[in-house]
Amino acid sequence: MAQNTQPPRGMRDFLPADVRRREYVIGIIKEVYERYGFEPLETPAVENIETLMGKYGEEGNQLIFKILKRGVHEKTGEADLALRYDLTVPLARVVAEYRDRLPRFFKRYQIQPVWRADRPARGRFREFYQCDVDVLGSRSPIVETELCASVSDVLVRLGFNDFTIRLNHRLLLDAMMSSAMIEKDKRSSVLVIVDKLDKIGVNSVRNQLAMLNIPGRSIDTILYLMTNTSFLSLEGKLAPQEFSEDPYQANSEWLASLFRYFKDFPYDDEGKNAAHEAIGNLDKIVELSQATSAARHIKIDPALARGLSYYTGAIMEVTVPGLAGSVGGGGRYDNLVGMFRKEDIPASGFSFGLERIILVMAERDMFPPDIVSAPADIMVLVWYDKDKDKKMQAAKDSLQLAQELRDSGLRVDVYPVRNVKLGTQMAYASKRGVPFVAVIGEEERAKSFVSLKNMQTGKQETVVRGEVARKVKG
Amino acid sequence: MAQNTQPPRGMRDFLPADVRRREYVIGIIKEVYERYGFEPLETPAVENIETLMGKYGEEGNQLIFKILKRGVHEKTGEADLALRYDLTVPLARVVAEYRDRLPRFFKRYQIQPVWRADRPARGRFREFYQCDVDVLGSRSPIVETELCASVSDVLVRLGFNDFTIRLNHRLLLDAMMSSAMIEKDKRSSVLVIVDKLDKIGVNSVRNQLAMLNIPGRSIDTILYLMTNTSFLSLEGKLAPQEFSEDPYQANSEWLASLFRYFKDFPYDDEGKNAAHEAIGNLDKIVELSQATSAARHIKIDPALARGLSYYTGAIMEVTVPGLAGSVGGGGRYDNLVGMFRKEDIPASGFSFGLERIILVMAERDMFPPDIVSAPADIMVLVWYDKDKDKKMQAAKDSLQLAQELRDSGLRVDVYPVRNVKLGTQMAYASKRGVPFVAVIGEEERAKSFVSLKNMQTGKQETVVRGEVARKVKG
Repeated sequence: MAQNTQPPRGMRDFLPADVRRREYVIGIIKEVYERYGFEPLETPAVENIETLMGKYGEEGNQLIFKILKRGVHEKTGEADLALRYDLTVPLARVVAEYRDRLPRFFKRYQIQPVWRADRPARGRFREFYQCDVDVLGSRSPIVETELCASVSDVLVRLGFNDFTIRLNHRLLLDAMMSSAMIEKDKRSSVLVIVDKLDKIGVNSVRNQLAMLNIPGRSIDTILYLMTNTSFLSLEGKLAPQEFSEDPYQANSEWLASLFRYFKDFPYDDEGKNAAHEAIGNLDKIVELSQATSAARHIKIDPALARGLSYYTGAIMEVTVPGLAGSVGGGGRYDNLVGMFRKEDIPASGFSFGLERIILVMAERDMFPPDIVSAPADIMVLVWYDKDKDKKMQAAKDSLQLAQELRDSGLRVDVYPVRNVKLGTQMAYASKRGVPFVAVIGEEERAKSFVSLKNMQTGKQETVVRGEVARKVKG
Repeated sequence: MAQNTQPPRGMRDFLPADVRRREYVIGIIKEVYERYGFEPLETPAVENIETLMGKYGEEGNQLIFKILKRGVHEKTGEADLALRYDLTVPLARVVAEYRDRLPRFFKRYQIQPVWRADRPARGRFREFYQCDVDVLGSRSPIVETELCASVSDVLVRLGFNDFTIRLNHRLLLDAMMSSAMIEKDKRSSVLVIVDKLDKIGVNSVRNQLAMLNIPGRSIDTILYLMTNTSFLSLEGKLAPQEFSEDPYQANSEWLASLFRYFKDFPYDDEGKNAAHEAIGNLDKIVELSQATSAARHIKIDPALARGLSYYTGAIMEVTVPGLAGSVGGGGRYDNLVGMFRKEDIPASGFSFGLERIILVMAERDMFPPDIVSAPADIMVLVWYDKDKDKKMQAAKDSLQLAQELRDSGLRVDVYPVRNVKLGTQMAYASKRGVPFVAVIGEEERAKSFVSLKNMQTGKQETVVRGEVARKVKG
């Protein structure tokens, strides 16, 4: 008879204290995004399967949870629906569907769960929340600057001060790989490997690249281009280069070096110097960000790759010391809406992983203690009486008092059983951490009084009924 | 290339104005439930399939969305997971799993979506939100009284005054059917039919019962017992009986009549008069509710049946004029936790259907107009200049002003493109309904001034930078 009562593998139940911590974080994220003029959007947990398939690469296709077509088709095993895999593809679908009802610049935030049939691990779940913020309709670096500023404001408000917003550009990555003579069909595999630089170190990356049959000289070039503490000399030789300690100066020097490196290297088929465009774009984001709260957190990092295939421009990722991986990331994806509608709409966005943030905040004890408070400000006890009519009257007294206190804004619990001795009721209130208890006995009722006890001090007093709320609010 | 961009059948995208309306309602429901000492719980959208199967009857099994087992098994069509069908069964699972970490009386609210593969219709969706509130651990009528009071507070706060909380009891339904000599195996079908009394009328109910081969005398008895304006005389003849106009009096009279009717009728196998127990329970809920905000809304309705099979005691349903069906319902289900754990834990709860509430509120124009406000309190425009350096400086000025205004608590949009004439930017702000625009030109910058325009009055003024926020807040 007894059934398995655990949630599905990789998914979690959130008991009250968990929910309150999550809502605290979500509340701050929402508030900051609202201050930036972002508006809320919600999409269904379920999408038509063809909306999702093919948008996340081959690995993504494997990780999508698929839902059986209902009714008689159930037996065929055919799936026509799937669980949301991220919030970006549904956004692109929404923009394609409602283009005429949306503003020219659509700034939306969306905080909802997504599902991935991934192998569960520490901090990796099969159901987890993404907190996304995106701007559609503009190609201006103002967009990325505002994204970085809002991300920075969120983290500062949550109590983080030591985060880094790493910044790179897909076209610069292409240019670097092109310059290192890495063949086009190997580039996405190379990116996956170099993206792990900060996790596994230079030597492991070098070995893994060698296993892909990347020539040694290509590996040298790409690693020198991407590694933060050394760089090509102006003469084109691989020699370390030191940058300023000031982060803004260092970013500028780094970008200037790359600019010089790609000076005579118009690598793309149309003769345009895409590397210079990318560097110019990054330079503007860095410069504009000087006017925002993100200024001292931004760091140009040419090794940043980001997994998803739909990015087309600037990409970013936020890291905090002590957490492998990031607390969030994003970038520009100018072609995704075009997959749903014959019109390219430029877009750029950022996504926080709620679970990552909560993990770090819990480890660092960053939650304000009053988030997980007692379930109520006061518990109204029910006077114990054997007489049937008096028992009924006592319960009505308690309920009426509770109603009055609730109307005055208090959170009020009523002991939910009659026929229980007051001591037992009080012990329960104490165990639950409720700071006050009140009870109306026969004497009190006659005089419109209430017995009020402060459970922390133990002080008990008889209070005029209308005064209880004021006393509890302190 | 263009794909279908609609959400799946029966599911919906919520654009910003929709989300704000939904969050308004959810916010009030949460606030009221918190005032009653309920704590938040969240469970995964996905459950192990065996957790759900068999809990909702045969029809329910058909309507559960099933998820394909992942990986190599995908091809076999085997489903091992399913989408949440309601919030009650997951609650029972949670209570069974975490019994030792939960308080003796677990009062939780839960506001999350559920999914049913139902035929979509007006107001009926395949993804919809339930707002549940439940008390576990007590059999006292205080529980149902508090449930009714909280439900009443929610509806009053939302602006409803004309709702009815219909109240009945599963054991009373059993007793009435037993008294009407309706065979046990036909009772659930009979309940489904009589539950439609207020929708399809007495004659249709009579016809449908006859089609079930219920004898005419049984139909007469059950309809007389259940119909609100007539009742059996004391002599046992079917004769109409008038009740007081005062709802509390009418409830008492109605219960007293039923009590007399079942006086000599100890119908159950153990010789206990279950009908009297049920009536006594309802009587206490009615009496206790006199002390709460639900007092004038409660109505004893012996024809109320409620669909779900797990109810064991008092049941309730809330209706508002003009809406077929209910805005919510609930009841006592003392045996559900026992299906997951070898321990019976009494439970009773109520569930609002968010979509139903929103449907009625939209039709009655009950939403406060300021819920769906402009996306920002002010839009900072970007000064237009052809000179490259001046252009950069202008954008930085705008971003810095935005940051200052945000820090002062305003919601601030920045026009997200450079190289656009101010008139175009202003027209966009106007179209979006943003009440103020600000811009820093070369002259203003030199003096630390800002040009501020009230878009409603058209008034434009030059303001000291630090004064902008105060002006906008009015």
